[in-house]
Amino acid sequence: MITQAVEYSLRAMVTLAKREGQPCTAQLLAELTDTPVAYLSKLMQVLVRAELVNSRRGVNGGFILAKKPAAMTIFDVVQAVEPIKRIRQCPLKISEHAGVLCPLHRRLDAAIAMVEHTFRETTLADLLNESEGRRPLCDRSSPITLRIDEPGAAED
Amino acid sequence: MITQAVEYSLRAMVTLAKREGQPCTAQLLAELTDTPVAYLSKLMQVLVRAELVNSRRGVNGGFILAKKPAAMTIFDVVQAVEPIKRIRQCPLKISEHAGVLCPLHRRLDAAIAMVEHTFRETTLADLLNESEGRRPLCDRSSPITLRIDEPGAAED
Repeated sequence: MITQAVEYSLRAMVTLAKREGQPCTAQLLAELTDTPVAYLSKLMQVLVRAELVNSRRGVNGGFILAKKPAAMTIFDVVQAVEPIKRIRQCPLKISEHAGVLCPLHRRLDAAIAMVEHTFRETTLADLLNESEGRRPLCDRSSPITLRIDEPGAAED
Repeated sequence: MITQAVEYSLRAMVTLAKREGQPCTAQLLAELTDTPVAYLSKLMQVLVRAELVNSRRGVNGGFILAKKPAAMTIFDVVQAVEPIKRIRQCPLKISEHAGVLCPLHRRLDAAIAMVEHTFRETTLADLLNESEGRRPLCDRSSPITLRIDEPGAAED
């Protein structure tokens, strides 16, 4: 249900959100999110085209979020990468179901709607704020991650 | 989110449920559900292996449900064809997330759990019973369908 493209994109976006505007190269982002760099690079281009991410060139270049984490939802990321498709019309084009879906498709669409609602209601900032004392989200427990998250904890 | 395999399988199962034990060939089932017969036949074999459908050989053979519609849920069909995968462990194998998922994966799993719950709670019988006066579910408005659904209404 959650495709790999969505999973990887969300890992990347959460990781960028945590960096608070500090650019991150595709290579480092791939390391931090445990994703294949070639695949992640393609996904980042999709996110750039969707205006969720900016790409800065140069020595200290890399990817940064295009907006604040509080202004971007899980839904925004999902819609950029692999849009949720609601069932608005009878997939079988049955004329009498044109106005009202049949019970099967109503039920399927209701399930999709619940997911859409959850994703629309959750910003990247929400995810950062919910870490409850644990090191937030999906960073790998590597020295690189520790240096980024906790500047004083590199010796940990 | 709802893949074609799931959509087609559910159409087929609902159609079989409506036939109340009357066998249906793959060809007729494909017509009734507006699905490609070759693809549907493969899905039916999956449903047979999952013991949701029986296949009867012979002149009046075809597919029938293996249990009553009230004893089969949307979830059963989905799990046979394309199982819902809950997120039980940190996909990045971060040791400190072993016991408790990070906020991102908690949120994703919560969305999956809602879908799972809806699908577990809905039997094929529920779908048939919810048609509210409309011709139920996904039959196509063809003479074949009318004859099957409403024996006296073929002239409609």
